[in-house]
Amino acid sequence: MTDSDVRLVDMTLRDGMHAVDHQFTPAEMADVAAALDAADMDVVEVSHGDGMGGSSINYGFSAATTEEYLDAVVPELTDTELSVLLLPGIGTVEELDMAVDHGADICRIATHVTEADISEDHFGYVKDRGLEANGLLMLSHMAEPERILKEAKLMEEYGADAVYLMDSAGALLPNDVRDRISLLVDELSIDVGFHAHNNLGLGIGNTLAALEEGAVTTDGCLRGLGAGSGNAQIEVLVGVLEKAGYDINPDFFGVMDAAEDVLVPMIDDDEMPELDNDSLMLGYAGVYSSFLRHTRRAGEKYDIDPREILVKLGEMEVVGGQEDLITDVASRLAEEKESGAAAEAASDD
Amino acid sequence: MTDSDVRLVDMTLRDGMHAVDHQFTPAEMADVAAALDAADMDVVEVSHGDGMGGSSINYGFSAATTEEYLDAVVPELTDTELSVLLLPGIGTVEELDMAVDHGADICRIATHVTEADISEDHFGYVKDRGLEANGLLMLSHMAEPERILKEAKLMEEYGADAVYLMDSAGALLPNDVRDRISLLVDELSIDVGFHAHNNLGLGIGNTLAALEEGAVTTDGCLRGLGAGSGNAQIEVLVGVLEKAGYDINPDFFGVMDAAEDVLVPMIDDDEMPELDNDSLMLGYAGVYSSFLRHTRRAGEKYDIDPREILVKLGEMEVVGGQEDLITDVASRLAEEKESGAAAEAASDD
Repeated sequence: MTDSDVRLVDMTLRDGMHAVDHQFTPAEMADVAAALDAADMDVVEVSHGDGMGGSSINYGFSAATTEEYLDAVVPELTDTELSVLLLPGIGTVEELDMAVDHGADICRIATHVTEADISEDHFGYVKDRGLEANGLLMLSHMAEPERILKEAKLMEEYGADAVYLMDSAGALLPNDVRDRISLLVDELSIDVGFHAHNNLGLGIGNTLAALEEGAVTTDGCLRGLGAGSGNAQIEVLVGVLEKAGYDINPDFFGVMDAAEDVLVPMIDDDEMPELDNDSLMLGYAGVYSSFLRHTRRAGEKYDIDPREILVKLGEMEVVGGQEDLITDVASRLAEEKESGAAAEAASDD
Repeated sequence: MTDSDVRLVDMTLRDGMHAVDHQFTPAEMADVAAALDAADMDVVEVSHGDGMGGSSINYGFSAATTEEYLDAVVPELTDTELSVLLLPGIGTVEELDMAVDHGADICRIATHVTEADISEDHFGYVKDRGLEANGLLMLSHMAEPERILKEAKLMEEYGADAVYLMDSAGALLPNDVRDRISLLVDELSIDVGFHAHNNLGLGIGNTLAALEEGAVTTDGCLRGLGAGSGNAQIEVLVGVLEKAGYDINPDFFGVMDAAEDVLVPMIDDDEMPELDNDSLMLGYAGVYSSFLRHTRRAGEKYDIDPREILVKLGEMEVVGGQEDLITDVASRLAEEKESGAAAEAASDD
């Protein structure tokens, strides 16, 4: 832990991996890590975008193994701490052991916002191995504050040193963030963190709201790298926090240099985060990006605006794996549209 | 005025002109205006980026005259109101008359945040011609709330129907916006508006803060078009306001379509707003973009990071026209650096 007001976790080499289809090379990771270390970043998180063990048919193969990435990154870190991500069901004990042997300081354990109970053994193991263990509650817009608190308390009970509210779909508004963070801060005795996505253009605004409510650690990526509209842009965040009077460790110009001089030359223009209609709809509807392709296809088949399908799916609070519901929703919307048109035609008579 | 909670002003065809070097053709403007009208946008603002009469050596020549733009846009507007921008000293009475003859509903009169007193005659003339007259206080981060109120009260006295706080450099944080907007709302009897720039990634976050404090009208551009990091992205803003429960006129999907189907095909990739280090520094330091080029040159000459010069200029609250100060600042910083290095060398002995 740092003695600053806010501990910043750079996720360019983890969540940012989604933007490059997990294709950073170990050498590229080393360059980014060295620049972040030189800029006094508090923590860097390194792994496949979906955590250790994510490299697979399901989640996409990364350019190298987590071990190869850590081999490259660890020698570059002097004061910056190293974090790895573990999703129960994806990452394994063997990989965690490997990360520990490489000197990882922190393991973050992520579950869906209502499924913290699957993480008990993982927290136990991480704490046994002597690491800091932080819990991430993903897709947190899908649960009310009281429910989130219940799940966060489970993680606290399992030994978590901090719990992060993950706005995985970028679907929270600042007041949603305030409600959730303030409750967690009031009721937990461990640190509370926040992780923004920019689907509603609120990556920085929501992070500020979280910190004002007492969150003491937060995530971001250089240039906001990340799937779709990306994460909170960390060099911007550093500048904003300085301007707002927070005492933080990272050096503003150093983080800016890491972004523009080191990261940008590695990234193709079409990999850069963009707040286009697709990203916006995911944040607006509060659904995961895996639904986009399917809704587009269903929209064509049933002659329905795929955005209407996404809104309906969001209202139904669907999660990954429920993609089969899309056709049902599309056909229902098409029926409603048809009967609506018929009623209108009848009333015109 | 509309009967919705928030009146949205689309500035794609005015502030957005900065992103395309004022080169929209009248036909392109007509297409964008038609799409916005179809989406029930409240107001569109049309003119050179620096207002009527801006087409010049100083501000860059636009592809057509304001009259040619209005000839093209006016026939496309059914319910959407038409606004033009007038900067005292740039726009003329003749142009204003021309805009009135073309059916402009609103004239917005913009001055530097501490120079409202130059706008008295302009408000008088605009009101005489029967238009709604709105005042814009530019570079509002350069004045304390009480001073802004004094200037806004002048505009109110001159006949303004609304006053907008313009965060021209994108330098305000949400709490800065709250302080300023809440005071204006409390003390003025006319409507209060807000205009964001995205230099600190707060285009949407700051706009939400302004509306929460009682602003009832706000600006944005499709895809956030505008100089540097651009303005508040208006299709995102529409989605966010809907999600937050505001009653607004524009149709979310319609505005999204205007952005992606109509505007994007007109814009080159390198014209799209980007939150790069340059834009970020302008927001952080609170200076105008015209300083960038000069500070870079001075930085090279004096071997100083140009960002340090920008920060110092921001502290000095320089405004456009004071570019000659840059060399002074750079040489002073270079001296300080040298004497600092000398002192360090001496203490090493």
